[in-house]
Amino acid sequence: MMNKRKIVGVLGGMGPDATVDFMAKVISLTSADKDQDHLHMLVDHNPTVPNRQTFILGGDEDPGPAMAAMASRLEVAGADFLVIPCNTAYAFQKSILDVVSIPLISIVDESIEAVGEKAPDAKAVGLLATNGCLQAGVYQSAMAAKDLVAVMPEDDELEQLMTLVNGIKAGHKGSDVSASMRKLAEALVDRGAAAIIAGCTEIPLVLDDSMLEVPLISSTDVLAQATVQFAQSE
Amino acid sequence: MMNKRKIVGVLGGMGPDATVDFMAKVISLTSADKDQDHLHMLVDHNPTVPNRQTFILGGDEDPGPAMAAMASRLEVAGADFLVIPCNTAYAFQKSILDVVSIPLISIVDESIEAVGEKAPDAKAVGLLATNGCLQAGVYQSAMAAKDLVAVMPEDDELEQLMTLVNGIKAGHKGSDVSASMRKLAEALVDRGAAAIIAGCTEIPLVLDDSMLEVPLISSTDVLAQATVQFAQSE
Repeated sequence: MMNKRKIVGVLGGMGPDATVDFMAKVISLTSADKDQDHLHMLVDHNPTVPNRQTFILGGDEDPGPAMAAMASRLEVAGADFLVIPCNTAYAFQKSILDVVSIPLISIVDESIEAVGEKAPDAKAVGLLATNGCLQAGVYQSAMAAKDLVAVMPEDDELEQLMTLVNGIKAGHKGSDVSASMRKLAEALVDRGAAAIIAGCTEIPLVLDDSMLEVPLISSTDVLAQATVQFAQSE
Repeated sequence: MMNKRKIVGVLGGMGPDATVDFMAKVISLTSADKDQDHLHMLVDHNPTVPNRQTFILGGDEDPGPAMAAMASRLEVAGADFLVIPCNTAYAFQKSILDVVSIPLISIVDESIEAVGEKAPDAKAVGLLATNGCLQAGVYQSAMAAKDLVAVMPEDDELEQLMTLVNGIKAGHKGSDVSASMRKLAEALVDRGAAAIIAGCTEIPLVLDDSMLEVPLISSTDVLAQATVQFAQSE
C-alpha cells in the first residue's frame, strides 16, 4: 500500500526534550489505528548545532550553516517539507530557505495565526520567548502586521526566563520550575496581555493552558497541528 | 568545538510512541548541562514499514527491504551505529547487516545481558513478547545459550498480549491497559519466572518495575543505556 501523505523533515535537537515533545504531539494528533497510519518523520535530532542565543547576542559561531546542512540532508533523504521545533531557530530561516526547494512551516507564523483562533479578541499578547528570539525580532514584526501589541518580559524577567529555559535543557522540569514560569506569564497578564504565546519550545514542557487565566498558545502544539494538517493535505 | 561522540542512527516508528519513549530515555540518561552535551541522533521515524508480525506469521509483504533501505540511508547520512527500538524487527537484522558496514546494537542481546545484572540468580525468565517475535525465535536461542529457561505466554495470553500491544500502537495506554499487562506478567511469575523481559517496546509504555514483585527488564531502557554508553565509547 502506498502512503500518499507527505514525509515530514524535522530539524530537531534544539532542544532535545522539545523535539521529543513535538514528535509525541504529532503522534497523538494523528488519527491512527495501527503503526502504518502514523506519519513518516525524518528527524535530524542534532543538539550539537551552535547555540542560537549566543550568536544572536554577539557570539562568533553561526548556527546557520549547520542548520542549512541539516535541511539539505533532510531534503535529499526524502522530506517533502521541513519544520523546526525551536522558535529562535527561525532567526536563521533564510540560511535554510537558500539551500532547499521544499517548504519550511513557520512555528512563528502558525503561533500568531493561533492567537486569532484561541483568543480572537486579544489585542495585547504576552510574548514569552528567549533573549535571542526577542533580540532577533522573530515575532515582533509578524505580530505588528496583525495589529497585535507584544507585551514582553522586562530585563530581570528575561534573565529569569533564560535561567529556567537553560535549566529545562539540562533536565530540570519540576514543579518549582513550572511555578516560576507561571509567575513570568502572570506578570505579562498583569501588564495587559489577554493571551500568552509560549514562543520557546522549552516552555510548554513546564507550562500548560490550565495554569493560566488567559489562553496559552503553545508554539509546540501549534507546530504539531500544522504538521499533521500539512502532511495530509493535497 | 568538535563533538567526538558517535552519531546514533535510529530505525524508528516501530511503533511511534516506543520510538519517542526510547529517545526520551536516551536524553534523560545523557549527562548534560546544555543542548550541545546531548547526543546527535538521526531518526528515520517510519511507521509505514510493512507489519513485522503479519509477515512472520505468513503474510506476503516483507518488511526486510524497507528496513534495509532505512539503515542504508542512515549510514549515508552519517550514522556511526544503528539501533532499532523494536524487538520483532530483529528477526530482520540480516537484511540490515547485509547492506551496511556500521554496527547494529541488538536490543535482544542487551536485554538478555541485563537479566544477568538485574536478576543474576534467575534461571527461569518470563518473556513478554509479540507473537511474531516468539515465532521468529528472536529471544529463545540467545536465552538458551545463557542457560536461561524462557517462560512464555500461553495461546490465550498471547492473544490478549497482541490486543494490548495493538491498542497501545493506536494510543490506548490507560490504567486498564496497565492492569491487564500486569496480569499477563504475573501469570508468568506464577509459572516460575524470577524476572520478566518486556521484550516488546510497547510494553514499557504501560508496565514498569514498581508494578511487579520480580525485576522487570525493559528492552527500551536497556537499549537506551547501551546507546548512550556506545555513543560515548572510544
